[in-house]
Amino acid sequence: MEKVNFRIKVLSRHLNQETSTPKFTLESFPCLSYKPPELSEPSAVFDIKEMRKLVDGHNLEDREWLFGLMLQSNLFNPMERGGKVFVSPDHSQSKEQQREITMRRIEYLLEHGVFKKWFTGEGPENELRKLAFSDCIGVFDHSLGIKLGVHLTLWGGAIQFFGTKRHHDKWLKATEEYVVKGCFAMTELGHGSNVRGIETVTTYDSSTGEFVINTPCESAQKYWIGGAANHATHTVVFSQLIIEGKNQGVHAFICQIRDENGDICPNIRIADCGHKIGLNGVDNGRIWFDNVRVPRENLLNSVADVSPDGKYLTAIKDPDQRFAAFLAPLTSGRVTIAVSAIYSAKVGLATAIRYSLTRRAFSVTPNGPEILLLDYPSHQRRLLPLLAKTYAMSFAVNYLKKIYVNRTPEMNKVIHVVSSAFKAIASWHNMRTLQECREACGGQGLKTENRVGPLKGEFDVQSTFEGDNNVLMQQVSKALFGEYVAAKRSKKPIKGLGLEHMNASCPIVPSQLTSHTMRQAQFQNDIFCLRERDLLERFAAEVALCQAQGKSREYAFTLNYQLAEDLGRAYSDRAVLHTFLEAEASVTSAPLKNVLDLVRSMYTLVTLEEDAAFLRYGYLSTDNAAMVRKEVANLCGELRPHALSLVSSFGLPDAFLGPIAFNWVEANAWSSEQN
Amino acid sequence: MEKVNFRIKVLSRHLNQETSTPKFTLESFPCLSYKPPELSEPSAVFDIKEMRKLVDGHNLEDREWLFGLMLQSNLFNPMERGGKVFVSPDHSQSKEQQREITMRRIEYLLEHGVFKKWFTGEGPENELRKLAFSDCIGVFDHSLGIKLGVHLTLWGGAIQFFGTKRHHDKWLKATEEYVVKGCFAMTELGHGSNVRGIETVTTYDSSTGEFVINTPCESAQKYWIGGAANHATHTVVFSQLIIEGKNQGVHAFICQIRDENGDICPNIRIADCGHKIGLNGVDNGRIWFDNVRVPRENLLNSVADVSPDGKYLTAIKDPDQRFAAFLAPLTSGRVTIAVSAIYSAKVGLATAIRYSLTRRAFSVTPNGPEILLLDYPSHQRRLLPLLAKTYAMSFAVNYLKKIYVNRTPEMNKVIHVVSSAFKAIASWHNMRTLQECREACGGQGLKTENRVGPLKGEFDVQSTFEGDNNVLMQQVSKALFGEYVAAKRSKKPIKGLGLEHMNASCPIVPSQLTSHTMRQAQFQNDIFCLRERDLLERFAAEVALCQAQGKSREYAFTLNYQLAEDLGRAYSDRAVLHTFLEAEASVTSAPLKNVLDLVRSMYTLVTLEEDAAFLRYGYLSTDNAAMVRKEVANLCGELRPHALSLVSSFGLPDAFLGPIAFNWVEANAWSSEQN
Repeated sequence: MEKVNFRIKVLSRHLNQETSTPKFTLESFPCLSYKPPELSEPSAVFDIKEMRKLVDGHNLEDREWLFGLMLQSNLFNPMERGGKVFVSPDHSQSKEQQREITMRRIEYLLEHGVFKKWFTGEGPENELRKLAFSDCIGVFDHSLGIKLGVHLTLWGGAIQFFGTKRHHDKWLKATEEYVVKGCFAMTELGHGSNVRGIETVTTYDSSTGEFVINTPCESAQKYWIGGAANHATHTVVFSQLIIEGKNQGVHAFICQIRDENGDICPNIRIADCGHKIGLNGVDNGRIWFDNVRVPRENLLNSVADVSPDGKYLTAIKDPDQRFAAFLAPLTSGRVTIAVSAIYSAKVGLATAIRYSLTRRAFSVTPNGPEILLLDYPSHQRRLLPLLAKTYAMSFAVNYLKKIYVNRTPEMNKVIHVVSSAFKAIASWHNMRTLQECREACGGQGLKTENRVGPLKGEFDVQSTFEGDNNVLMQQVSKALFGEYVAAKRSKKPIKGLGLEHMNASCPIVPSQLTSHTMRQAQFQNDIFCLRERDLLERFAAEVALCQAQGKSREYAFTLNYQLAEDLGRAYSDRAVLHTFLEAEASVTSAPLKNVLDLVRSMYTLVTLEEDAAFLRYGYLSTDNAAMVRKEVANLCGELRPHALSLVSSFGLPDAFLGPIAFNWVEANAWSSEQN
Repeated sequence: MEKVNFRIKVLSRHLNQETSTPKFTLESFPCLSYKPPELSEPSAVFDIKEMRKLVDGHNLEDREWLFGLMLQSNLFNPMERGGKVFVSPDHSQSKEQQREITMRRIEYLLEHGVFKKWFTGEGPENELRKLAFSDCIGVFDHSLGIKLGVHLTLWGGAIQFFGTKRHHDKWLKATEEYVVKGCFAMTELGHGSNVRGIETVTTYDSSTGEFVINTPCESAQKYWIGGAANHATHTVVFSQLIIEGKNQGVHAFICQIRDENGDICPNIRIADCGHKIGLNGVDNGRIWFDNVRVPRENLLNSVADVSPDGKYLTAIKDPDQRFAAFLAPLTSGRVTIAVSAIYSAKVGLATAIRYSLTRRAFSVTPNGPEILLLDYPSHQRRLLPLLAKTYAMSFAVNYLKKIYVNRTPEMNKVIHVVSSAFKAIASWHNMRTLQECREACGGQGLKTENRVGPLKGEFDVQSTFEGDNNVLMQQVSKALFGEYVAAKRSKKPIKGLGLEHMNASCPIVPSQLTSHTMRQAQFQNDIFCLRERDLLERFAAEVALCQAQGKSREYAFTLNYQLAEDLGRAYSDRAVLHTFLEAEASVTSAPLKNVLDLVRSMYTLVTLEEDAAFLRYGYLSTDNAAMVRKEVANLCGELRPHALSLVSSFGLPDAFLGPIAFNWVEANAWSSEQN
């Protein structure tokens, strides 16, 4: 009877939970129940749809259509948890299973017209639609995005950019329709970042009009070639080209590697790269070429050609420039990496923040109620600055997309620099965000089905592929150095790369910061510009000093890697802030503008707090740094009521978040287990 | 003929590579060959065996024996790569396969006497032997370590520490011999860190002399219970104990969950926790108790008991103290987490540093040879400070082991604080090190068989289990605060937790640092003590201020989380440095001492460089911070020649590193593929 009474007490407490103050003392323990944050949180003070439009930037209807398409098929692994359906790839499958289902998903998207006009369409609108599709696909699964990207962007892009009409006519439609499946054989076992050093060798046989592609040694085997292990029928091969005994440098050739039955072609050997910590839906493989012969026409000849009788012909005499022209199209890879990193961070944040609005732990007064995780100042400090940075970087990658789809040859340099910088900071930001989100979800962050944890393994590759992030940062600084030195030499104002602010006098930061000042765009811009300007001047001075001591310029860069990396960050942050201000300028709604002001201040001030360069180089006094730190804490409190609306504005369908973002009590109920 | 000549040229270059300067220009591309770092690196200037003894600290022969035992069995998944055998768990297997092989490995270790005298042995030597075994097992696989730890440390430890003679007699030998398989049911779906809030309820039925354990609601289901999903036969259940209608707080009970056939017992329901991003060799499960009856004797009654007629009896009247007594044994979990984190970091570093001594990329002069990765200052800066920190933390965890195995009740507090601090910083350090090592290996760091990447997923759990690291740091600061306030109040000198330095006058840091000063133990100790002292005083002042404003002490702690976390780090770093100095004091060999001096200076100075607190709170002027940064770069250059010897001194058998640490050209050769 005592037990019955106890159960009744427990039950009645449970049912009355809405009205009574929950108490977690030694005396009482009401059962926890899940309350959707939509019911417990303040309603949005701004128009979520409008914010979403700003954040996604373009092609909203196309996005909805593609999300819907994925939700309609069992191929996308729907699972029911706590009364809702979720889709996400099953990362517990073997690599063989993951590869096959990824290919089936591609076929499904193909059948439903997702790749229609991929190459045969034209203009920035067509490109933006492709990028929107790429965003949505990446939200579902990075493997799917990468496997598509290898075929469409790398293989297809190589045909498009390195090839000429004869290649376009023959391959682009076939690529769009997946009549051929392409891969991109650039990296070798011995050479990754240093493409120029690759060891594959191609010679020309004028007696047959064929190129002969060869892997002369084990370190020259092609490595990490996505699509090569199972599905690709063709590849673009990068190789040194030897004409009349002279090495003309790296060139690209089309080569078939599998026949129509999927059997490996003669003189091609292929092996698997094996299991990886993520991206197991991509069949990375290794390729050896044993004097494989391809027709002369298979040279992608946009910058250089070989005549039938074996003469090397090129419009670009300088081998360095020729090589640079080859690498330029890789930019599109960096654009999609940067964008997909930010969408991945959104999945993590939306999941972790929603969970933190429904999960309680500890109380701060004896016998007081347990506190929502996001009501702890420390939990706010963990997640809300990352939320603000994700907003800032959304605007940044939208800008990158915009300049990319509207590119002209004159913009190559700026696109190269911006895409390198944003690829590095976006992928770093994503990894950091996912780690923080996984920890903020506690053990639930480790469960594969909750998405946050596995995304770490899936996206880790982004820090090193298409350029190690640290190396990219150094490259950015070298480019800034080049602009700066050229302007000094020509005694003209600096123009380009956003460095124009250096033509004005150096901004002055108030000696005593106030909350008001810190929230002004003027101050925020000034201090970011101040840092960039000073670091560029220091970097240039240090490099000059090394050169004066007789060191090579390249070695001088190498020695000053710390300044180079600090400068790379300074450039990136300033560029991100500019895109934020530009995005804000387009907003007319006052409530939206007010929240964006908060978000922008958080982005800027947390950057000031976290990058020790501001203290190290004296851009902030210790007093001002203390003010900044206090202001970040204040901003955490001010952003807290908007947390739910801000993640809702990401526009991610519920089904693409982790189940922990919703009714996790019900999702874990015994009754759910029995379904 | 031209091609033949070319091949001959290539081959002859290849064969002559030892003597000719390799050139990577447009004109020549000799094939890369692998040269073991042992042949290319300077030989060790100190005795590697002696260093290893210092770093491993104890039971070297036992370690060799256990490593050998694992190498002798096919259960440990030996694979041949590049002419060497490697062992590591196959993380590409399904969770079911990983769980079963983990259990088979345990049985193998059991049969070979690894757990003999685990509980029936006595004294610090026995405990150190156990810890040495745990180190080696963790080097092979974290899942194996955790699955063993749940049974031996958590289940066995609970019997040992919470139980009395009747439990010891009945269960300890059976546990050591795996006659029973135990698990540890503390965490629930609704309550992880906040154990006090758990909702499982136990009542006593004096008519039958039984306890009745019940899961009153879904949020009370036991969650993450290692061993529960497949193998455990028994569990310790943590539950609120209700006696005569009064809740006496959390108590622990023994409960059988599976019978001798492995079938789940009546009134027990069990479900799987599902696939995780790592540790899939551990069968984490969920348990519901449906008014399960256990004999009165199953209460683990070291601090409280219930008489046959249902009276609650306890020697500790204060429920808070009683609760604390329950949590104390969790300390041993934190000890092994801290230690295993450092061994994991060693696997990552030994692999990445060896690879960086054999892999080249780019050149810094036109047509110059490609440079070894570790000869780039930036690559040194990425890896060598982490190497120094790993050394420092090795000494720290050895100290932790020492105080743990020699513990007395008076040392409970210090062990609690040290183990919390070291668990947090060691697991953070490990995750950061693994990430850096994975990136330093480029794509190879992502290959499962190379170990570095997968270790990230396997060890990620350490940041949050047995206490979220951020929360642990706050707890450390609260303990320091308690000591400080008590000393102030009693007007006696501070004694304990290493805070005695605060009784002396505040150390003074020279206004102009020199290289000489920065490398002195005196300066290093002074500046670490200065930071700890100042942060503790600031923290106490801020908490007092909040309390004066009427806030609860707990809420005051919550608001000052940033200071608390800064202070937790300051305490930890200072404590680590002290263990380093203590370890160094035992060294008599001058060459060993010299290298340790360098390593310690690197550890200290990189901490000064990386923790912005030194600038933020003014412990370092910007000038001095610049000096520190320069000195870290100098130390990178000075440690570079010792890199190989320092990782060799970790004493990890080659077979336990990733294959990428050895002949990766041969390991990837086509001929290897055919085996």
